[in-house]
Amino acid sequence: MNRPLAEALCPRFHKAVELIGRRWTGAVLQMLMSGPKRFGDLRAAVPEISDRMLSERLKELETEGIVQRDVSQDSPVRVRYGLTEKGRALRGPLDAIETWAHEWVPPA
Amino acid sequence: MNRPLAEALCPRFHKAVELIGRRWTGAVLQMLMSGPKRFGDLRAAVPEISDRMLSERLKELETEGIVQRDVSQDSPVRVRYGLTEKGRALRGPLDAIETWAHEWVPPA
Repeated sequence: MNRPLAEALCPRFHKAVELIGRRWTGAVLQMLMSGPKRFGDLRAAVPEISDRMLSERLKELETEGIVQRDVSQDSPVRVRYGLTEKGRALRGPLDAIETWAHEWVPPA
Repeated sequence: MNRPLAEALCPRFHKAVELIGRRWTGAVLQMLMSGPKRFGDLRAAVPEISDRMLSERLKELETEGIVQRDVSQDSPVRVRYGLTEKGRALRGPLDAIETWAHEWVPPA
């Protein structure tokens, strides 16, 4: 069907919603909202995630410019993961999802 | 590690963010925000989605109480998919994601 569409899907919205909603990504972003975390802290806060999955998600978020890796100059070196400005700007959307969830998603 | 966590993941937020972000769900919800649609209209608005995937997503959203199926009394019968009150309440989160996307996601 080539008839014109009243509405078209916005590809930027589409990319954003599926990025945020990818398995464990929302959880990781929520944890990072309160400040940079070490890998082990994220792992402990999200017990069901595997090391492999957590690394993968953090790498994806780094590639998207949402998360940055900070390596301390101390010895031993400490690596922490924090949000960039782009990542911090997700606070509004994530808070809106949380508000909706608390109103509409029944407790498990 | 059983040490107490400074923060815990909210399971209702977690469920909500992964529900909204499931493949094509955000796109379907965005389309339904402007009113009920027939299957074919949704299919045309989201060209990359298959019939099977679209049915699956609509069924999931019905199970979650976000989408309802309206069957007209006319002949031939017409089926349309619309948002429930719970679904319409997603406007805030989806608008916030769209705003973020327009600010931070580069055009393809």
